[in-house]
Amino acid sequence: MCNACLIENVKRETLSRRQLFTGAAAVGAASVAAGLMSARPLLAQASGRIVDLTHTYDETFPTFSGEPGIVYDKVYDLAADGYNLYKLTIDEHTGTHIDAPMHFSADGNSVDEIPVESLMCPLCVVDISAKASEDPNAMVEPEDIEAWTSANGDLPEGALVAMHSGWAAKVGDESFRGDGTNLAFPGFSKAATDLLMEAGAGAIGVDTLSLDPGNSADFAVHYSWLPSGRFGIECLTGLDQVPATGATAIVGAPKHRGGTGGPGRVFALL
Amino acid sequence: MCNACLIENVKRETLSRRQLFTGAAAVGAASVAAGLMSARPLLAQASGRIVDLTHTYDETFPTFSGEPGIVYDKVYDLAADGYNLYKLTIDEHTGTHIDAPMHFSADGNSVDEIPVESLMCPLCVVDISAKASEDPNAMVEPEDIEAWTSANGDLPEGALVAMHSGWAAKVGDESFRGDGTNLAFPGFSKAATDLLMEAGAGAIGVDTLSLDPGNSADFAVHYSWLPSGRFGIECLTGLDQVPATGATAIVGAPKHRGGTGGPGRVFALL
Repeated sequence: MCNACLIENVKRETLSRRQLFTGAAAVGAASVAAGLMSARPLLAQASGRIVDLTHTYDETFPTFSGEPGIVYDKVYDLAADGYNLYKLTIDEHTGTHIDAPMHFSADGNSVDEIPVESLMCPLCVVDISAKASEDPNAMVEPEDIEAWTSANGDLPEGALVAMHSGWAAKVGDESFRGDGTNLAFPGFSKAATDLLMEAGAGAIGVDTLSLDPGNSADFAVHYSWLPSGRFGIECLTGLDQVPATGATAIVGAPKHRGGTGGPGRVFALL
Repeated sequence: MCNACLIENVKRETLSRRQLFTGAAAVGAASVAAGLMSARPLLAQASGRIVDLTHTYDETFPTFSGEPGIVYDKVYDLAADGYNLYKLTIDEHTGTHIDAPMHFSADGNSVDEIPVESLMCPLCVVDISAKASEDPNAMVEPEDIEAWTSANGDLPEGALVAMHSGWAAKVGDESFRGDGTNLAFPGFSKAATDLLMEAGAGAIGVDTLSLDPGNSADFAVHYSWLPSGRFGIECLTGLDQVPATGATAIVGAPKHRGGTGGPGRVFALL
C-alpha cells in the first residue's frame, strides 16, 4: 500500500538527533529529504499545505436523481433551547461522497470497512478538461492514462486517480447535470478503469455526479470497479489546485456501519 | 497556523535536486530533516502511518440523549434495483463528530465554515486515564496541561488537544454514558480550556460524549470554548495508539452548509 515505502524509509533511519544537529549536513537538509524521496509517492514530501477537495453542499446541491440529497430539520435552537442542532436526512450519495464497494456489489466492503490505509494514498490527477469542453460526455480513456504516465512516470501503487474535467466549476448551473434533456457529464471509460486496475490503482475519483459518464446506459465502471473491492469518489472539487502527481490524498470517508458510501471530507496534502 | 512554519521551510529551500543527490549530505538526509524539524509540529516529520481516531457507529452507538443517533432506510437494494443505497437520518452530534462554534453560539462558524487550515494541525494527547478510572466525572485540569507541557514542551500553535480518559474502550457498555442513574464520563474543566485558549490551542477533543464532564450542570466548556471560534470533537477513539505529541491530526469534518457539526472522520498521521 501507499505507506509501505514511507515506513521502510523511517526504519532505515540510523542517525541520532544529536548527530544530525552537530553534522555539517544540517543546512538545507529538508531539501535533501525532499529530493531523496521525490521518486516515491511519500507523505514526507509534503510541504504541509492542505487543499480541500470537498464541495459545501445543502438541499440545492445537484444530485444524480434530481431530488434534494439532504434535508435539514432544526430540532434545537440556541434562543429557545440553549444550543443549535439539526437532524439531517441524507441520501448517502450526495455532495462530495464515497462509493463503497457494496454500493454495486452483494458482498463488497461497506464504507466503514474500507481499510484505513487505503484512505491515505498518492493522488494522481488526469486532466481531460480540454476534450470535456467539447463533449459533455467525454471519458477518461486508456490513452489519457498513457499520456499521464508518459508525462509523470508509473502510477504509484494504491493511487487515487482523479478525473479533472472542469465540471466542479459548473456546480451552480444546470449544465452540471445535463444538457437540458438528458444527463450529460464526463466520467471514466471501462477500458480506462480496467487499465488502472492492472496498474494497481486503489480508487478513482471524478468531479462529476458519477464514475460513469452521464450518457452511460450500463454503468460499466460502477459494475466492474466497485465489485473489485476498490472505491470511488464523486463530486470532487479543487482538482485545479493540485499537481498531476506528488500530492497525497486523505479520504475522510464516513464510518456508519454497513453504509454503501456517504458524504465525506477529501483533502490533498501538498 | 500549524502549516505556516512548514511552508516557510519549503520557501527556504535553495538547493536543486541535482545538488542534493551529488552532495555528501545525501546519506541519512531524511533523518536530518526529521531532526531539524522536530522542534516544530510539522507534517514533514510524519512516517506515513495513519491511525484512525473514528468509531464505527450505527443505531446502537451511545448518544448524549439516549436516542438512536442514526436511522437507516434502505431505499435501493442490489437484487431488486441493481444497486444498494440508504437514506440516513442523522443527529448531527452522533458517533465521532465535530462540534462547530455555532453549536453553542448565535454567530459562530458553522461546520462548513471552519477554516480548512485548522483541520490539519498538531495533535497533543493528555492522558487522564488513571484518575478517570477512579472517578467517572474526572476532568482535565490546568495541572494536567502543565504536566503535559513539562514532559513535552510548549503546546504547538493551533493544536488539537485531546483528552484520553480510556472511555473509548467502554463504548459497548452502559458505563460509557453513565453510572446507572446519571450521565457520568470525563471531560475538560473550564479552567483547563481557558488555559488552552491562552496557549493558542485551536481545538479540543474527548473520547467521551461531551466536552464537559457527564455531571456538568452548566456546560461551561461548550459555552466558552465554542463561542470563542474554536471547535471540538467528541467520541474519539484510538488515542491509546498515538504519542502524547508529534502526530498530526487530520479532521475530516462534514461540509453541509450551516451545520452545527456532524459525524466526521478523524485521523492521526504518525
